[in-house]
Amino acid sequence: MKSILLIGQSNMAGRGYLSDVPAIYNENIEMLRNGRWQMMAEPIHFDREVAGVGPAASFAAAWSQDNPDEKLGLIPCAEGGSSIDEWGADQLLSRHALAETKFAMASSELIGILWHQGENDSLNGHYKNYAKKLKAVFDYFRKELALPELPIVIGELPDFLGKTGFGLSATEFAEINREMAKVAGDNCYLVSAEKLNANPDGIHINAESQRQFGIRYYEAFTQKRNILHALGDEDEQLSKIYGRAATKNEKIYLLSRDFALGRIDYQKFMEKFAEIAE
Amino acid sequence: MKSILLIGQSNMAGRGYLSDVPAIYNENIEMLRNGRWQMMAEPIHFDREVAGVGPAASFAAAWSQDNPDEKLGLIPCAEGGSSIDEWGADQLLSRHALAETKFAMASSELIGILWHQGENDSLNGHYKNYAKKLKAVFDYFRKELALPELPIVIGELPDFLGKTGFGLSATEFAEINREMAKVAGDNCYLVSAEKLNANPDGIHINAESQRQFGIRYYEAFTQKRNILHALGDEDEQLSKIYGRAATKNEKIYLLSRDFALGRIDYQKFMEKFAEIAE
Repeated sequence: MKSILLIGQSNMAGRGYLSDVPAIYNENIEMLRNGRWQMMAEPIHFDREVAGVGPAASFAAAWSQDNPDEKLGLIPCAEGGSSIDEWGADQLLSRHALAETKFAMASSELIGILWHQGENDSLNGHYKNYAKKLKAVFDYFRKELALPELPIVIGELPDFLGKTGFGLSATEFAEINREMAKVAGDNCYLVSAEKLNANPDGIHINAESQRQFGIRYYEAFTQKRNILHALGDEDEQLSKIYGRAATKNEKIYLLSRDFALGRIDYQKFMEKFAEIAE
Repeated sequence: MKSILLIGQSNMAGRGYLSDVPAIYNENIEMLRNGRWQMMAEPIHFDREVAGVGPAASFAAAWSQDNPDEKLGLIPCAEGGSSIDEWGADQLLSRHALAETKFAMASSELIGILWHQGENDSLNGHYKNYAKKLKAVFDYFRKELALPELPIVIGELPDFLGKTGFGLSATEFAEINREMAKVAGDNCYLVSAEKLNANPDGIHINAESQRQFGIRYYEAFTQKRNILHALGDEDEQLSKIYGRAATKNEKIYLLSRDFALGRIDYQKFMEKFAEIAE
């Protein structure tokens, strides 16, 4: 089993509305819960009650298509509203993410980090030290995990920032993006946020765009290169992911969930279970 | 700030339907997220996508009424479907719960553990070793946390088990309860599950009953005694909790949440914000 660490702030944690996009279930994609693996179900993160769709689910689904005989585990450690300083060496969020990752690594091989952060630093000239600080974060994680070559994918900030709602104060997103680009290289790959759209709050990437963003993250990860523009075929790739037939285990999972949630009664559960188990 | 560790299986994690009961928000009640504290919002646990209402929220609300000048932090580490063996010394779930608790203890004083578990051991004569194993779990946690006198509240298994749905196989719940009673004493207090009702799945305590159960847990905790029956005034206590007026901070939290979820637009958000801030 392979695993991927997810760190950064709210757009990595995910705030896209779950009801806006088809769900992704895949028994080969898991997420860390209480130090163990469970089949992925969104929201993957739980940092806030508003957690929703981030880039990780479609990233994992694209990875799984290319690696059908392997499992991928997601380690959710992004924290809404966190600044670059809060991800520095020996900071609480970093230490907690490392602790979680070490639980994951007891049963998986860590193959990468997905990073998205910077909204909180897009003001008051903070960008001036951003590249240096970001590099230090990555150096710290690689050192602590004893994986000096660990691939890291960095998502750019979207250009809807700085305009309205909770995004209003993030006026220096373009400067942050310019600094991020300086950190690319050395197994760090940059991913464009071109054409991504916001929730009504003006700061969070919406669910549909997060799905597309995840496809870009995967493209950068698998091709080991920067993705400097939107890909032409994101929606086709997503259609293929959404169109995948559910396996027997996935059907049983969803049926059990519906019964647990009171959506079907016990008789219906047993009937459907018998059909699936046939 | 004080804190409470929540461990056990799904009925501690909570599977009551959120929509069945009034929400509880209180700026003096927090929950651990990424090693830090956030204002409590249910579900407190996130072990499964079906996580919902457990006993902890009403426990905390009752505690907060008696301790208006202090904060309480909840540490959610219960795991759906876990057996008593999985909570033994050096087991993964135990080690993970201890790791989380140590993050919490950096900024709080741990004052107790709430425990609910046993459904998974209510068959095939497993009860025969249950008291011994349960005692060993508590000894291990107290030793590792260097708190030999730490109060622990143990909730009994409800009598709707063993009858239908996912509860069908848990036929030996009465035997498990008998064994639990042997562990009471030595700062461990037993709480009755009398008159608690199930979700349609026949194994999970419903939301209304979880709220009542939480009141009983608090009564045992604060009075340092076993609660062997339903209390007469649980619903009155809950009415008082539900009737508490929201503070300014709580109003701003809920308003921001509604804006983030797209339930209100930016203009409405700003208008309401101005009203609250007045």
